[in-house]
Amino acid sequence: MTYCVGLRLNAGLVFMSDTRTNAGVDNFSKTKKMFTWAVPGERFITLMTAGNLATTQSLVSLLDERSKAPKHRSPTILKQPTMFEVARLVGATLKEVIGESNATAKDETSKFRASLILGGQIKGGASTMFFIYPEGNFVEVTDETPFFQIGEAKYGKPIIIRVFDQKMSFNDSVKLLMVSFDSTIKSNLSVGLPIDIQTYEADSFKIGHQVRLDEDDEYYQSISSGWGNALKQAFETLPSFKF
Amino acid sequence: MTYCVGLRLNAGLVFMSDTRTNAGVDNFSKTKKMFTWAVPGERFITLMTAGNLATTQSLVSLLDERSKAPKHRSPTILKQPTMFEVARLVGATLKEVIGESNATAKDETSKFRASLILGGQIKGGASTMFFIYPEGNFVEVTDETPFFQIGEAKYGKPIIIRVFDQKMSFNDSVKLLMVSFDSTIKSNLSVGLPIDIQTYEADSFKIGHQVRLDEDDEYYQSISSGWGNALKQAFETLPSFKF
Repeated sequence: MTYCVGLRLNAGLVFMSDTRTNAGVDNFSKTKKMFTWAVPGERFITLMTAGNLATTQSLVSLLDERSKAPKHRSPTILKQPTMFEVARLVGATLKEVIGESNATAKDETSKFRASLILGGQIKGGASTMFFIYPEGNFVEVTDETPFFQIGEAKYGKPIIIRVFDQKMSFNDSVKLLMVSFDSTIKSNLSVGLPIDIQTYEADSFKIGHQVRLDEDDEYYQSISSGWGNALKQAFETLPSFKF
Repeated sequence: MTYCVGLRLNAGLVFMSDTRTNAGVDNFSKTKKMFTWAVPGERFITLMTAGNLATTQSLVSLLDERSKAPKHRSPTILKQPTMFEVARLVGATLKEVIGESNATAKDETSKFRASLILGGQIKGGASTMFFIYPEGNFVEVTDETPFFQIGEAKYGKPIIIRVFDQKMSFNDSVKLLMVSFDSTIKSNLSVGLPIDIQTYEADSFKIGHQVRLDEDDEYYQSISSGWGNALKQAFETLPSFKF
């Protein structure tokens, strides 16, 4: 499993992903699920992946390879004129990869699936984010739904619904996601540290902050232990039930 | 979908279940998912059900029918000597019901599945709780895992993990479950009010409190709106993140 969240703030974009990958509980390891392509001053694109690792690695390699020596290998995400066209291209590439695996193993179609969060900005357009389905189609963030989750999304969703606000600062939004990730990691063994964090400041056209937090990171520890107490105190403030 | 939770407190047992049932989002209605059999002074048994409604209704009807005129219709849950034997009988009956449906529609085996939480006490034994799988086998609560959830369990689990304590009072545990249900109801349309609540005081061998809370219940409203603010305040108390 996996847990990735993308937030669209007024200030820009925030991406957070875990790094655990597993095929059964006795076969797990670390892998990066966040990939960035940038042309400073012109475009910034980040992709987070959940699902079959062979599919997502192949997808990222294809996108990456086709972005090099673009004269010979178009279409490439570095040449698409808008984020919408980038999303179409990434979706089509995902469909292509899944289709190739399906062709050789028709009975296990669902095994090769993957979902993606794609965010970024290209000069002339706004910074935005897309949720891309295994079928290659996608939806874009809106003011009503200004965040996307992929992978093991349920445990960490209630806190985002309750606290997230597009006017938040980058620092506060990272703190919020840290709580959401901690709730998920405590509930599901297949989501694990370290956590990759990346921010993108709107109209900057370059990577913002980029951090990896480990199990022994002090801040993560303070959130993980502090949130339990904070929740208990919050619970105390609610009115008591009487039969 | 469904959401049911059973807690084992030092003081006794607490059961809470939603009442929404649906076959697609355009076909939903209300149904009770909590069923009780009691012989005052001798035994108390409560069952909560999640899964295929035809399966769970048939199961409850069979258990109920076989408990009447027990001379002619044994074995019955009203005659089993221990809660362990009751769990075996309920598990076997569940397996029987699912097996009958499977026999006529082999391609859709998984559709007829159901999971159960069974709790209660029989004179001579302790009050206890079981999680019964569609295969008819089951596990019992332990001090390490003193609660069970069935149905849409993920959204409401983190708050239970963080706050639940077996030393809680009935009132506090109902308040806790109210928060857990509210988080779930806000995140999944297929879980809905009203909520059924029941308590069982250990060694009382009779039904404790029995309440149904509706959408317009004042206490539910105060939790639902109050928890958002309480969470935001709890979030504020955590240390800020700095890149």
